[in-house]
Amino acid sequence: MRYVNVGIVGLGRLGKQHAENLVHRIPFCNLIAVCSISEQEVNEFIKPWNVPYGYTNYDDMLANEELDAVFIASPSSYHGEQIIKALEKGLHVFCEKPLSLYLSEAERVQQIVQRHPDQVFMLGFMRRYDHSYQTAKKKIEQGAIGDPIFIRCHGLDPASQMDNFLSFAKRNYSGGIFLDMAVHDFDLARWFLNAEPKETWAIGGGYARPEFEELNDAETGAAMVKFEQNKMGMFVASRNCAHGYHIETEIIGTKGSLRIGTIPEKNQVAIMQESGVIHECVTGFLERFEHAYLTEAEEFINCILMNQHPEVTVGDGVEATRLGYACKESFELERLISVTSYRQSC
Amino acid sequence: MRYVNVGIVGLGRLGKQHAENLVHRIPFCNLIAVCSISEQEVNEFIKPWNVPYGYTNYDDMLANEELDAVFIASPSSYHGEQIIKALEKGLHVFCEKPLSLYLSEAERVQQIVQRHPDQVFMLGFMRRYDHSYQTAKKKIEQGAIGDPIFIRCHGLDPASQMDNFLSFAKRNYSGGIFLDMAVHDFDLARWFLNAEPKETWAIGGGYARPEFEELNDAETGAAMVKFEQNKMGMFVASRNCAHGYHIETEIIGTKGSLRIGTIPEKNQVAIMQESGVIHECVTGFLERFEHAYLTEAEEFINCILMNQHPEVTVGDGVEATRLGYACKESFELERLISVTSYRQSC
Amino acid sequence: MRYVNVGIVGLGRLGKQHAENLVHRIPFCNLIAVCSISEQEVNEFIKPWNVPYGYTNYDDMLANEELDAVFIASPSSYHGEQIIKALEKGLHVFCEKPLSLYLSEAERVQQIVQRHPDQVFMLGFMRRYDHSYQTAKKKIEQGAIGDPIFIRCHGLDPASQMDNFLSFAKRNYSGGIFLDMAVHDFDLARWFLNAEPKETWAIGGGYARPEFEELNDAETGAAMVKFEQNKMGMFVASRNCAHGYHIETEIIGTKGSLRIGTIPEKNQVAIMQESGVIHECVTGFLERFEHAYLTEAEEFINCILMNQHPEVTVGDGVEATRLGYACKESFELERLISVTSYRQSC
Amino acid sequence: MRYVNVGIVGLGRLGKQHAENLVHRIPFCNLIAVCSISEQEVNEFIKPWNVPYGYTNYDDMLANEELDAVFIASPSSYHGEQIIKALEKGLHVFCEKPLSLYLSEAERVQQIVQRHPDQVFMLGFMRRYDHSYQTAKKKIEQGAIGDPIFIRCHGLDPASQMDNFLSFAKRNYSGGIFLDMAVHDFDLARWFLNAEPKETWAIGGGYARPEFEELNDAETGAAMVKFEQNKMGMFVASRNCAHGYHIETEIIGTKGSLRIGTIPEKNQVAIMQESGVIHECVTGFLERFEHAYLTEAEEFINCILMNQHPEVTVGDGVEATRLGYACKESFELERLISVTSYRQSC
Repeated sequence: MRYVNVGIVGLGRLGKQHAENLVHRIPFCNLIAVCSISEQEVNEFIKPWNVPYGYTNYDDMLANEELDAVFIASPSSYHGEQIIKALEKGLHVFCEKPLSLYLSEAERVQQIVQRHPDQVFMLGFMRRYDHSYQTAKKKIEQGAIGDPIFIRCHGLDPASQMDNFLSFAKRNYSGGIFLDMAVHDFDLARWFLNAEPKETWAIGGGYARPEFEELNDAETGAAMVKFEQNKMGMFVASRNCAHGYHIETEIIGTKGSLRIGTIPEKNQVAIMQESGVIHECVTGFLERFEHAYLTEAEEFINCILMNQHPEVTVGDGVEATRLGYACKESFELERLISVTSYRQSC
Repeated sequence: MRYVNVGIVGLGRLGKQHAENLVHRIPFCNLIAVCSISEQEVNEFIKPWNVPYGYTNYDDMLANEELDAVFIASPSSYHGEQIIKALEKGLHVFCEKPLSLYLSEAERVQQIVQRHPDQVFMLGFMRRYDHSYQTAKKKIEQGAIGDPIFIRCHGLDPASQMDNFLSFAKRNYSGGIFLDMAVHDFDLARWFLNAEPKETWAIGGGYARPEFEELNDAETGAAMVKFEQNKMGMFVASRNCAHGYHIETEIIGTKGSLRIGTIPEKNQVAIMQESGVIHECVTGFLERFEHAYLTEAEEFINCILMNQHPEVTVGDGVEATRLGYACKESFELERLISVTSYRQSC
Repeated sequence: MRYVNVGIVGLGRLGKQHAENLVHRIPFCNLIAVCSISEQEVNEFIKPWNVPYGYTNYDDMLANEELDAVFIASPSSYHGEQIIKALEKGLHVFCEKPLSLYLSEAERVQQIVQRHPDQVFMLGFMRRYDHSYQTAKKKIEQGAIGDPIFIRCHGLDPASQMDNFLSFAKRNYSGGIFLDMAVHDFDLARWFLNAEPKETWAIGGGYARPEFEELNDAETGAAMVKFEQNKMGMFVASRNCAHGYHIETEIIGTKGSLRIGTIPEKNQVAIMQESGVIHECVTGFLERFEHAYLTEAEEFINCILMNQHPEVTVGDGVEATRLGYACKESFELERLISVTSYRQSC
Repeated sequence: MRYVNVGIVGLGRLGKQHAENLVHRIPFCNLIAVCSISEQEVNEFIKPWNVPYGYTNYDDMLANEELDAVFIASPSSYHGEQIIKALEKGLHVFCEKPLSLYLSEAERVQQIVQRHPDQVFMLGFMRRYDHSYQTAKKKIEQGAIGDPIFIRCHGLDPASQMDNFLSFAKRNYSGGIFLDMAVHDFDLARWFLNAEPKETWAIGGGYARPEFEELNDAETGAAMVKFEQNKMGMFVASRNCAHGYHIETEIIGTKGSLRIGTIPEKNQVAIMQESGVIHECVTGFLERFEHAYLTEAEEFINCILMNQHPEVTVGDGVEATRLGYACKESFELERLISVTSYRQSC
C-alpha cells in the first residue's frame, strides 16, 4: 500500500488546519515536512505531531527528495511562484485560493500547469466539497430546478475580524474585496450556472470604516454580472457581518430554486429567551467548512494515488480571477466592464 | 337582508377584542348591547362605537327584546349560569372557553343546550378556526400522515403575565392549569386524534414560583394521556414561558407527521446581530389568534343566519372539561386516573 | 359620528378584496358605490352586500354627490386619468400602484395632487402597512442595524399565473417587469435606505418562456442600483416562481441586518413526510398582504376623518416610477442608466 | 510519543464506522486488530487498511499481547460478557450502548468496572459529544435558561429501517423500544436535568405494524417520567419516522428554554419547488452523529494517554438501563412504576 508524502508551506490559521488534517485525518497520507518563515511556528507543530522535517525556507523544503506533493497555504502573493517551483520539481501541488492576485500571473501559472499534465494540480475551492454545495450541484444535475438562470452569492466575513484585516491590508496588497473574497463565489457561479461571465458592474464603499476607501477597497461591495445565455449573477461581499461568517447561495432555475446556507447556524441549538428565539451563527471559515477542508484534501491525495485529476482545474482559478479582476476594475472606474475583453486580450 | 343583533357580556382584554370585531368586522352583525360590571368599561366602549345599549347587569341586558344572540366573555365562573339564562330567553349563545370550571356544571349545561336544538350554541375553541390548525386538519383528512396516533401539545403562557395570574388566582378559583389552560389542547387532541381519552397521569410543580404549590396548582405541568385505540397524548402547560406565548402542536401519524407553531414567530422579520439570528415571538393569545377570533365569530353569525350548527359542540366542551378534571385529580392525588370512570359516573 | 362614503372603481381580484374590506371591515366607512365596465361584476357585488349604487361608467359614479372618496383599483393604464378626474371633483383618492405606467403622466398627476392639498391622496404601497415591514422600519429607526447601506428585494410572482399574465401582456401594455412589479420594491428601497437612486443597470430574459423577449419584457429580471451616499440596492423580479408568491427583503446596516419574508410560508404548519420537511408557501398577494390591504384602507379613512395626510405621498409614487423607468431603459438599451438625469429633465 | 493499540469487535454498520475512524482519523491510535464472526467482514476490512490482525473469535483477539484497548461494537447481548473479559485482561474498554439488555447484568458489569479503577471504561453515549448537545450543556451551566425542570426527547428511527428491525427482532431479543432506543434519551435526561428518575408510565403500540405487539414491543412508544425535585421528562420513541432519523431534545428551565434538532435537516440546502420549501432530513445515526462518533473515540484515546476517566461513567449506563427497564415494565404491566424501587432492590 502506497502512501503520499506531503510537505506544507504556511502555518497560519488555515495552514495549521490543513496540516493537522494531513497529519492524522487523511488516509494514505504522511505529512513529512512543514515550512513557515516563523521557526517558532515550525517547532510548535513538528514536535507534538512527530513530523520529521521542519523548514523556514520553501526552497529547502522542495529539495527534500522524499516529498511527493506540496500543500501551499502561504500568503496569496506567494502562490504563483511557489506553485511553479513545485511543479518544476515534479511535485503534485495543492494550492489555497486565490491562484494569484494578478490576472497575468494566474494565466502564466495555468500555462505551466498545463505543461505538467502528469502531476496533480488542485486549487482550494473547498466550497465545492461541502456537503450542502455537493447536494445542490447534484440536485441541479438531476433537474430539480430546471435550467439554472440566476445565482446570488453572499460572502460575508465576521465584523470581529475587520480590524485584523485592515491592519493587514494597510501593510500588504490584499487584492481587494472582489479578488480576495468574492473569488470563491465567482467560482460557485461558474460551477452552478455552467456559463462564463460576460459583463459586470461593481459598487461598494467603506460605510462603517472609511479607511477602506483610502485603500481603494470596499468594506462591503456588490457586483452584478451578466453571463453567457443571458444568465444573471448577484454578488455581495462584506468584511462587516455582525452575526458572524455568512456564506449563502441562491440558485434560481426555470422550474424551481435552491438556497444554501440562508441562516448560517452554528449548530442545531435554538435558545428561547426573553428577546425571542435565537440561533447562534458560525464565526469563521474553519468552522463552516471544517468538513470541506478535509474532503478536498482527501480528494487531492486520492487523485495522486489513482492518477486522476480533480474536478477543480487551474482554469477554474484563472476564470474566477478574471471575473474578480473585472469587478475590481468596474469598482475603481465606476463603469460597466466587459469580462470578455479581458479574455480576448490574453 | 337580515342582520343579527348581538349583545356581549364581559369587556376584559378578550371581551373587548370580540366586541370590536362584532362592531365592525363581522358581516351581517350589529353589536347593539354591551354589559360589564364596570360602568366605566361600558361607557368607554359604547360611546366611540355608537353602540346603543350599555348594561352593568346581565339580566337587564337579556331583557332587551331586540337581541338575537349573546357573546359571553365574562370570567369563567359565570359561564355556566349565563349560558343557561340566555338559552332560556331563546337567544343564540357564543361562550368563551371553558364551558365550566366544574364537570357537573358542564354536564348540566350540556343537557340544557340539548333541550334548545333550534338555538345556535358555540364554544370558543378558536384554535380550530386558525388558518394553520385548519390546514393541519385538512391535511390529515386527506391522508397526508396516515392515521394520527400521537399528539403533543405545548400551551405556554408568557412569563410576563405570571404575576397577574398569581394575584388573580389568590383571590379566585382559576380551575388550575389543566382545566384553565390545557383545556384548549385537550380539545385539539380529541379533534385531531378522533378518539376519546381513557387514562391520564399528570405531574408538575411551582418551580420558579413556589406560590403555585400553595394554591394546589402548577406553574408548569405535564400530562400523558392514553386515548382509545391506544393513541397517545402528551401535554405541557406552563405560565412561565420566557420567550412569549407558545402554542405548539405535533401530530404523528402512521405515514408522516405535522407540526404547527414550532417557533411562535411574531412576524416574518429575522434580526441578525452580534448575538445571532433572532426571531421575536408573539406575546399573547390576542396576537397569535387575532384572525381565529374573527373567523369563529363569523362562523357563529353565519350559523344563525343559515340555521346551521357549528362544528364545535357543547359536547366538545364537556369532554375537554372531563379530561381537564381527570388531569387535575391525577396531579393532586399523584396517581393514574381513569377518564372513563368520570364518564360512566354521569 | 361621521362616516366616509366611498366608491370603488375596478372589481378585479384586488378590487373585489378592497371592496369587501370597505363594505364591512373598515370602521366609519360606507361603501356606497361600485364601478366596473362589467355590468355582471357590478351586480354580483352590490346585491349580496346591499351596496346602493352600481355603475359601469366611471364618470357616472363621480357624478354621485354623496361620495366623499374614491378607491381606484382599475387597470394601471387608467390610473392617471381617473385620479385627476376624482381630484378635480373634490374627492379624496386612494389609488392602487402604479401611479402610472408613464413617467411623464406620473409627474403630471403629482402636480395636480399638489394643487389639491386639502384632499387626501394615497397610493397603494401596501407593503409599508404590513406587520413585518412595519416592524423592520421601526427596528431600523431604533438603531438595531446601524445605518442601512444595502437592500436586496426579491419580488417573485407565482409561475401558476404566468400564462394569465402573458395573455394579458400580449393585448395590453403592462409596463414591463420593472415598472409593473419591481415598483413595490423600489418604494421599499427608498423607504428603508432613506436615499434616492442615482444609477442603475438592469438585465434579464425570457428563460422558460421566450415570448417575454418578443414583448420586449423579461420573465425574470435583475437590477442593481447605486443610491445616494453610495448605498446599494439589488432587485430580482420574476413571473416564474415555482413555489408561489415570494416577497423578500434584506437590509444590511453598518451594525447588523434584517430579513423579511425569507421563506414565504403559507402558515405555521410543517409537514414531515418521506421527502423531508415541507412548508407550503403563499400563493399570491391577496394571501400574503391580506392584513396590509386592510390596514392601508383603515389609514386612508382615518386620514380623511382626521384631516391628515398618509405617510405614502404622491412623490413616492413618482420616484418609484422614475426608477422603474430607468431600469426599463437600462434593460432595453443594455447599458448603465443615470436615474438622476431623468430627474433633471423634468 | 506513545500510541494506543486498539482492537475492535463487531463490524456492522456502526462497528465499521468506528473502525475506519480508529484506523485513520484518531491521533495517537493504531487499530491493530479487528474481530467479527464473519471472516469475510474481517478480510474485507484488514486488507485495504493494512490492519495486521484479524480474528473471528473474541477470546483469540484478547490473547494478543500488543493490545492496549478494545472497542466493543458487537450485538447488544454480548456487551456485558465482552466488557468483563477485556477488563480482566487488563485492557481499556470502550463499549457501544447499551451497557446491557438486563439490569442485573448491567449492575454486575458496574461492579467489575469499579474493581479496575486504573483502566479506562467508556460507554458510547455519543450524543454527549455532539457539538449541539455540548453547546446546550454549556449554555445551561452558564445559566442561560435558569434551572432545567423539564425535558422532552424525541428519538425516532427512520421508517425505511423498520423491516430490517422487525426481522432482527423476530430472531433476537432486542430489549424493546425503551431499553434499545430510548436509553440514549434517558442518559440525556439525567445529564441535563441533573436528577434521577423516580416514577414512570409508558404506553405505546404497533400502529402501522401490529407485529410489534406480538413481540411485546412498541413501534412507537411514549413515557412520562417524574424525576427528583419534581422535574419532568417526556420521551417519544418510534421506529416509524417517515422523514428520516429524528433526534430532538427540548429543555425548559425556569428562565428560558433550549431546543436541539427540532428539524433534522440533512444539510443547509432548501429546495423551493411547486410543493413548497423542502428540507431533506438525515437518514440515520451515522449521518447525524458522524462527528460525535469521532469525538468520543478521541476522548477515549485521550483518557488512556492522559490517565483520566471520561465524563460518561459505567454508572450512567446502569441508571439509563434502570429507567429503560422501568419503562419496559410499565408498558407491559400498564401501570405506574417506581424507578426508585428498582434501585433499592439491588
